[in-house]
Amino acid sequence: MTTAENKLSIFALGGLNEVGKNMYAVQYENDIVVIDCGSKFPDESLLGIDLIIPDITYLKENKDKIRALIVTHGHEDHIGGIPYLLKQLNMPIYATRLTLGLIEIKLNEHGLLRDTKLVPIHSDSSIELGTFKLTFFKTNHSIPDCLGVAFHTPEGTVVHTGDFKFDLTPVNDHYPDIHKMAELGKNGVLALLSESTNAERPGFTPSEKLVGEHLEEAFTKADGKVFVSTFASNVHRVQQVVDAAIKTNRKLALLGRSMVNVVSVAMELGYLKMPDDMLIETNEVNELAPERVAILCTGSQGEPMAALSRLSNSKYRQVEILPGDTVIFSSTPIPGNERNVARIIDNLFLLGAKVIYGSGTATGMHVSGHAYQEELKLMITLMKPKYFIPIHGEYRMLHQHRVLAESVGVKKENIFVIKNGEVVDITNSEARQTRRIPGGNIFVDGLGIGDVGDIVLRDRKQLSEDGMLIIVITLSKKENKIISGPDTISRGFVYARQSEELLNDVNQLVKKTINKLQEENVTQWKVMKQSVKESTGKFLYAQTKRRPMIVPIIIEV
Amino acid sequence: MTTAENKLSIFALGGLNEVGKNMYAVQYENDIVVIDCGSKFPDESLLGIDLIIPDITYLKENKDKIRALIVTHGHEDHIGGIPYLLKQLNMPIYATRLTLGLIEIKLNEHGLLRDTKLVPIHSDSSIELGTFKLTFFKTNHSIPDCLGVAFHTPEGTVVHTGDFKFDLTPVNDHYPDIHKMAELGKNGVLALLSESTNAERPGFTPSEKLVGEHLEEAFTKADGKVFVSTFASNVHRVQQVVDAAIKTNRKLALLGRSMVNVVSVAMELGYLKMPDDMLIETNEVNELAPERVAILCTGSQGEPMAALSRLSNSKYRQVEILPGDTVIFSSTPIPGNERNVARIIDNLFLLGAKVIYGSGTATGMHVSGHAYQEELKLMITLMKPKYFIPIHGEYRMLHQHRVLAESVGVKKENIFVIKNGEVVDITNSEARQTRRIPGGNIFVDGLGIGDVGDIVLRDRKQLSEDGMLIIVITLSKKENKIISGPDTISRGFVYARQSEELLNDVNQLVKKTINKLQEENVTQWKVMKQSVKESTGKFLYAQTKRRPMIVPIIIEV
Repeated sequence: MTTAENKLSIFALGGLNEVGKNMYAVQYENDIVVIDCGSKFPDESLLGIDLIIPDITYLKENKDKIRALIVTHGHEDHIGGIPYLLKQLNMPIYATRLTLGLIEIKLNEHGLLRDTKLVPIHSDSSIELGTFKLTFFKTNHSIPDCLGVAFHTPEGTVVHTGDFKFDLTPVNDHYPDIHKMAELGKNGVLALLSESTNAERPGFTPSEKLVGEHLEEAFTKADGKVFVSTFASNVHRVQQVVDAAIKTNRKLALLGRSMVNVVSVAMELGYLKMPDDMLIETNEVNELAPERVAILCTGSQGEPMAALSRLSNSKYRQVEILPGDTVIFSSTPIPGNERNVARIIDNLFLLGAKVIYGSGTATGMHVSGHAYQEELKLMITLMKPKYFIPIHGEYRMLHQHRVLAESVGVKKENIFVIKNGEVVDITNSEARQTRRIPGGNIFVDGLGIGDVGDIVLRDRKQLSEDGMLIIVITLSKKENKIISGPDTISRGFVYARQSEELLNDVNQLVKKTINKLQEENVTQWKVMKQSVKESTGKFLYAQTKRRPMIVPIIIEV
Repeated sequence: MTTAENKLSIFALGGLNEVGKNMYAVQYENDIVVIDCGSKFPDESLLGIDLIIPDITYLKENKDKIRALIVTHGHEDHIGGIPYLLKQLNMPIYATRLTLGLIEIKLNEHGLLRDTKLVPIHSDSSIELGTFKLTFFKTNHSIPDCLGVAFHTPEGTVVHTGDFKFDLTPVNDHYPDIHKMAELGKNGVLALLSESTNAERPGFTPSEKLVGEHLEEAFTKADGKVFVSTFASNVHRVQQVVDAAIKTNRKLALLGRSMVNVVSVAMELGYLKMPDDMLIETNEVNELAPERVAILCTGSQGEPMAALSRLSNSKYRQVEILPGDTVIFSSTPIPGNERNVARIIDNLFLLGAKVIYGSGTATGMHVSGHAYQEELKLMITLMKPKYFIPIHGEYRMLHQHRVLAESVGVKKENIFVIKNGEVVDITNSEARQTRRIPGGNIFVDGLGIGDVGDIVLRDRKQLSEDGMLIIVITLSKKENKIISGPDTISRGFVYARQSEELLNDVNQLVKKTINKLQEENVTQWKVMKQSVKESTGKFLYAQTKRRPMIVPIIIEV
């Protein structure tokens, strides 16, 4: 509970010590406003898990206080958890039009669209939610229509940057509201929450415009078809591909469901501009000369089912990559995706394509959407916050962001590097890290939300490494002896047909183990099973140096 | 079989379209000389597999022709498969002293040392093996004592570079034999096999000496203890850590088994030089002032059991990382290891350490041991080969190496980008890709070599994602009815105690399925099991969107 002295609280339910599932909240007495509700993809250690979402226990316990969900922009790590949140807690969602457009697609898929109140806002909106007055400012990022949020509270102003960079030559004149940021700073910011994704990178992010120049150059040089793979939501990137295609007299085809979806929403809302006859269907690609065609496709992260992967395996219906075609990765692999991306590049070279790839800004075909160190320092300098909470990033990023904040004058003791679920309570004279609320990971596996926990994951891990061996024994109740079996079933351990001898030895060993127990008049199943597990496990490890899961099944008839 | 016209053959059993498990061979009529026998670590898709080694079927079928194994240097991807090779085929091993020293450690662990003939060679050795005369030349790499090999055959000279870079200011005056390479080229090279690891990188690798300068700078600045993590086998790097420690008046402790092993072999053989009182034991670390201590440790790739990982979790006995200590990653993460390395960096920052990390040469604390594009071009220019086979790399690297070779004058039709097991036959007038021999992957899992195949791996994959459900039913032979069960056992699918309802529904469904079959007088177990699998699978997918492995067990009594 918030005590009387601690009227203003700030905490994260996701996004700290991780990249993904961003979810932050500002609470003032009986008013809670939530910022973003993202999801995160599991790493390979979370076997079989589809998605990770924030733990919203605290919000459920305080549901009467929740005034709204503010969404800063439409990326998955800021909107991916919304359907799961809304299934448990209804609340109005405030966001810009493009962000709402992307949320709508998601809610529609989950059948939640009808019952959710969606409120469009823009950078000049001013809304009141309980005690809070909220104002906004435009930021640049790798998706249009991003906002930073200022919470004007009785204790002072709390600012959440959302994701941002400072692009001073942005595409489509989407300038950042740098004067608004300066004004907030001038009027006094009590606490700043600023994103830390690129806090490890020195310098200033290159402008998105630079990518446009390189795209145009590559389009001009290309003899055949040009394929560009990028995130569909990077509408400004898409715009620059459109522009390069127009300049080099190429029509544009779209491959991949999310590319088609996002382009259609972005065009409808006016974020993406192109001539009426620009787009062609995939079945029209082969009707045009190769040098008249550009293709935008999904799959820049090597996703096995996405368009680019299928193109690289010559498995895309109607469109083929041929010798002389150019494939541009307008992206950089997210850590963990390198191998899948590399496999696709190998296959593209095998098809005879010219491939433009490379990490970071090396090829000129990609720039980051997140502020580098000098921009992070600029944001802190503009805001001049009393208290600073680095958000959105793994620990080393938060740590580096703290170092940056100190370097531009924020007092060391006024910087809070916290964990998900740790609460910072602020008055205008003091800030303290106080209570702790649930801030863990909730796993989504198929339709199950939160039902897969440590035990199931531990079993999956063992099964994945050494498989299992089921041992079935039928005992007679009356005569106290084995009447059938032991029979063994191996899955993922050894290939039974090649390992008959080993499995026969197991059967003999089990028989001996059971007989010995029966001689000793031990008849409890639990003890029998444990003995079979232990003796078989020890034997198999000595023979194979593997530890399959051993599942003894005893039937008594 | 080699035909009369194709007396000279070149092929790879590993190392093409992959990074790792290098194994090449040159055959002339009835003489085969093998070059290297490496191993490779599996990627995460090969669940439970410990190691991948080359398929040596062809060598076993031609064992009478094998004259020797030449090992170019002592890295795992060149020596890791040797114990498995020698268990099946005995052959003498020729290598330099350090390489043999590292091979000996390995053979000793496998109990193979006594029966293997190890022949020390050096760069001026000249040996005759059947028809072949072999000479050698020194190269630079991230381990000392590397050789390139020239096979002088009646058809002409075949050169295998081994791994190399051109370091013109090497540590310990280990200069590359550039004049010998030039002489080979002048006398005529029929075919060149050259390594392709860095064929994607423009420019020239920085010299190892550069790392020494940066290490010394960091050691001088450091107030507390300095930890440096690098590959133990990088003896020149170790030498430079020693030198930096000497200059800053620090003693040196070694953490990690391979660090202790390699340093001891390298000192014994004179590749590593340090004062007698330089090394201290781990239990002496705390007896010295922090600024008098340097520590070399394993684990630069984030290996969970290695020294650095344990240090970062404060789980290393006797040595602790404290605020003010410096930790230097003198390494770059191998693709796939980024997350493990990042986790360690996070933990080191949490301990209050100053951490110097970053990929590639960004921090100045690491340089690659593999030639960049300009060096690869220099090698081809020196050798002036008629035929060129890029080796050692994934397809895109081999492809880029081909482009480089063309750029320095090798004819396109004389370049062979081949796969493991594809044979190039060469006469002095013509080269052709002809037959194919087995060139696949052999999986080592525990003590099993090659016994885990596609079926077992497929099962492991399914088990890893959705676990399994065992369904046990006991039928009466006489009365044709269920006498006990169905009982379900879930592992890695759902947590049974939380899913009683679901599992009850499964039991009801199975009962219904079996009863229906019995009404229809279907009594074949196979059909019954299949029906149970299908109906349960469909039901569970509808309920959970998961596909556990379903194992029906029917007992008839």
